[in-house]
Amino acid sequence: MTSHWQTLYARRLQWMTTSVIRDILKFAQAPDTISLSGGWPEADLFPVAQLDEISHYVLTHMPKESLQYGLTDGLPALREALAQEMTRRGIPAKAENIVITSGSQQALDLMGRIFLDEGDTVIVESPTFLGAVQSFNAYGVRFAPLPVDEEGACVDQLPALIERARPKFMYLLPTFQNPTGVTMSLERRRKVVELAAAYNVPILEDDPYGALRFEGQPLPTLIELDAARHAENARTGSYAQGNVVYLSSFSKTLAPGLRLAWAVCPPEVARQFVMAKQGSDLHSNAMAQTMAYEFLRRGWLPDQVQRIRETYLTRRNAMCEAIAAYFPPSVRYTRPQGGLFLWVILPEGFDTVALLSEAVARKVAFVPGKPFFVDGSGANTMRLSFASVPPELIREGIKRLGELIAAKLR
Amino acid sequence: MTSHWQTLYARRLQWMTTSVIRDILKFAQAPDTISLSGGWPEADLFPVAQLDEISHYVLTHMPKESLQYGLTDGLPALREALAQEMTRRGIPAKAENIVITSGSQQALDLMGRIFLDEGDTVIVESPTFLGAVQSFNAYGVRFAPLPVDEEGACVDQLPALIERARPKFMYLLPTFQNPTGVTMSLERRRKVVELAAAYNVPILEDDPYGALRFEGQPLPTLIELDAARHAENARTGSYAQGNVVYLSSFSKTLAPGLRLAWAVCPPEVARQFVMAKQGSDLHSNAMAQTMAYEFLRRGWLPDQVQRIRETYLTRRNAMCEAIAAYFPPSVRYTRPQGGLFLWVILPEGFDTVALLSEAVARKVAFVPGKPFFVDGSGANTMRLSFASVPPELIREGIKRLGELIAAKLR
Repeated sequence: MTSHWQTLYARRLQWMTTSVIRDILKFAQAPDTISLSGGWPEADLFPVAQLDEISHYVLTHMPKESLQYGLTDGLPALREALAQEMTRRGIPAKAENIVITSGSQQALDLMGRIFLDEGDTVIVESPTFLGAVQSFNAYGVRFAPLPVDEEGACVDQLPALIERARPKFMYLLPTFQNPTGVTMSLERRRKVVELAAAYNVPILEDDPYGALRFEGQPLPTLIELDAARHAENARTGSYAQGNVVYLSSFSKTLAPGLRLAWAVCPPEVARQFVMAKQGSDLHSNAMAQTMAYEFLRRGWLPDQVQRIRETYLTRRNAMCEAIAAYFPPSVRYTRPQGGLFLWVILPEGFDTVALLSEAVARKVAFVPGKPFFVDGSGANTMRLSFASVPPELIREGIKRLGELIAAKLR
Repeated sequence: MTSHWQTLYARRLQWMTTSVIRDILKFAQAPDTISLSGGWPEADLFPVAQLDEISHYVLTHMPKESLQYGLTDGLPALREALAQEMTRRGIPAKAENIVITSGSQQALDLMGRIFLDEGDTVIVESPTFLGAVQSFNAYGVRFAPLPVDEEGACVDQLPALIERARPKFMYLLPTFQNPTGVTMSLERRRKVVELAAAYNVPILEDDPYGALRFEGQPLPTLIELDAARHAENARTGSYAQGNVVYLSSFSKTLAPGLRLAWAVCPPEVARQFVMAKQGSDLHSNAMAQTMAYEFLRRGWLPDQVQRIRETYLTRRNAMCEAIAAYFPPSVRYTRPQGGLFLWVILPEGFDTVALLSEAVARKVAFVPGKPFFVDGSGANTMRLSFASVPPELIREGIKRLGELIAAKLR
């Protein structure tokens, strides 16, 4: 039955899509399926008792801040605390640089709202985070794919790509990238920041996983490298000038259900965020903001992050060992130093979408890689998450997958 | 200093505005100012102790539902509970009709995203809720104003307006309207639902205040009247067919800081909401959803709403009595039967924007009416909120305003 509603929908509904991943996750909901497909963190690591203590504290001590209407850019105390946290991490920030958003997903949407007109182009890594593609799609844009290898986005291809595509901005996940788990090398980081300035193409740096490094030395973020280029930033102690909007989130450190993230950007861009956000949802959940503020104020974040790192390291090790043991040797895979995901590249011609239904029948789920590519490639790839499954189930799941892959390659 | 950012902003930034009201509210933040300008509910009525008990309960008993990623359309148990609540209020709804949003502000934005292309027209009441204008502005639309009198929107003018403006939908606040406080009569309600069907122009019915009736008999909502037109709705027990998207919210009954509202609509439109929301913020705060669900499950909402009604009735009485006593007799005003606001119409030629700075100097704040009109009229009007100020301060504030107005009219 068609309805009169269909005659009324906006043109942009043609561009918009729901996430393939979400559909796949429904498969993985079967209780006895080993889900290596989740994009979510391990729920057993949520600091439930601490959040319980804090929720009581904020409702008792900050009831109005927790329950009344708040400011669009966020709870001032939380913005201040995040500015200090950012500064500690090497990013010169004051409260004027911070905008609280309802998850990074909202920040992506607001970036689209601020910068993207129909027909504009965005450079994205190939593969890239699907949620960003979904957000930008609503604005009727095109995507220019920048390939990713084991050192991150192939920055040497950027000048030609920029000249051809004339993008509004480039969306990059330099650290423990979703979906591949790879980290951009320092050399490429320096290069991409220089190119962004030379071509006047801003960078949207998405960094939800950066705190979750469980191995190796931290690398400077792109916004840190960009900030260092501007004397004005050093003078003001804030990110006054520059070319990067940086996103981070509490979703992978505290809890995604709080829907709390933040953008770091020049004050001028922060003002546009506020204007765009005021019409979008007025402000983010106030109680989540007082709770996150109190969590930071009590200094509980470092221990919480450390617990997550240790668990995820064990699980990455279990997954890499199981892949080495059970996958055919022609299969390549990444060995991420942090984050939630690793990436598997099967021989050319392999079809991981076809594999998925067989895998689900064997009670193991993964995410086929193809949807992460805006150019339709990647049929022979898959994303595996080690974050939310215990080591013994990781081993069993990889074993089952390995048997299926081996049978297909035979 | 201009920056390179300015060369990159989307065209729609020209259309977008921040709320004048918000700027005015900053005035009213001075601690000794009597603020009759707020759009917020009385914070002393927030059920803090109950929410404290419930936050402990949900973190203990539903930690994953409260903290992990959730579904885009909302916590299934909350959608089910709201469907039952809607059905009790006369609106035939199942969970498939309910989409949870991050405040009604997000629902307004999602309506824009689903229905509005650049150049489209939306019929709005004149005056209307500023936040809706802000949301729709982001989509580059025009507004066709429908005048409001003491019986609500002047529905008899609708056929001519529809034929002239060819609108995508009409945005109506039939009950305790923001900003005027007036309620649309039953006769006009029936008429507008008929006209909407005849002209195939959907209604977006915004009803954040409907539960806060403190006087008089409840009138059927527009969605209830529309549902009754379709046998299919009676057959399925849900709002399967029809022409209305209905919005309501926990902001004025529980607490606005939770940013929790819901839309009731045909399942087909609900699916578009989900697609639009997935790219906007993935889902609304999960803990707020488990808390609201638990509040409903325990049956605490009716008593909470009753407490609010009693307080607001006392305050409306105080305000109306004070206006009768202190405002010149040439000033007209509404006497709302519910909600948060009343509306003052001063003699033609009066300028309430000019009055505001004098009022703020006298430590009393209100909202000038002009920004609520999309056609630039209304310079002689103002919105007064009686919700968040105790009666004795209402009297003092009205007295001060009355003196200022009398001096100007002399």
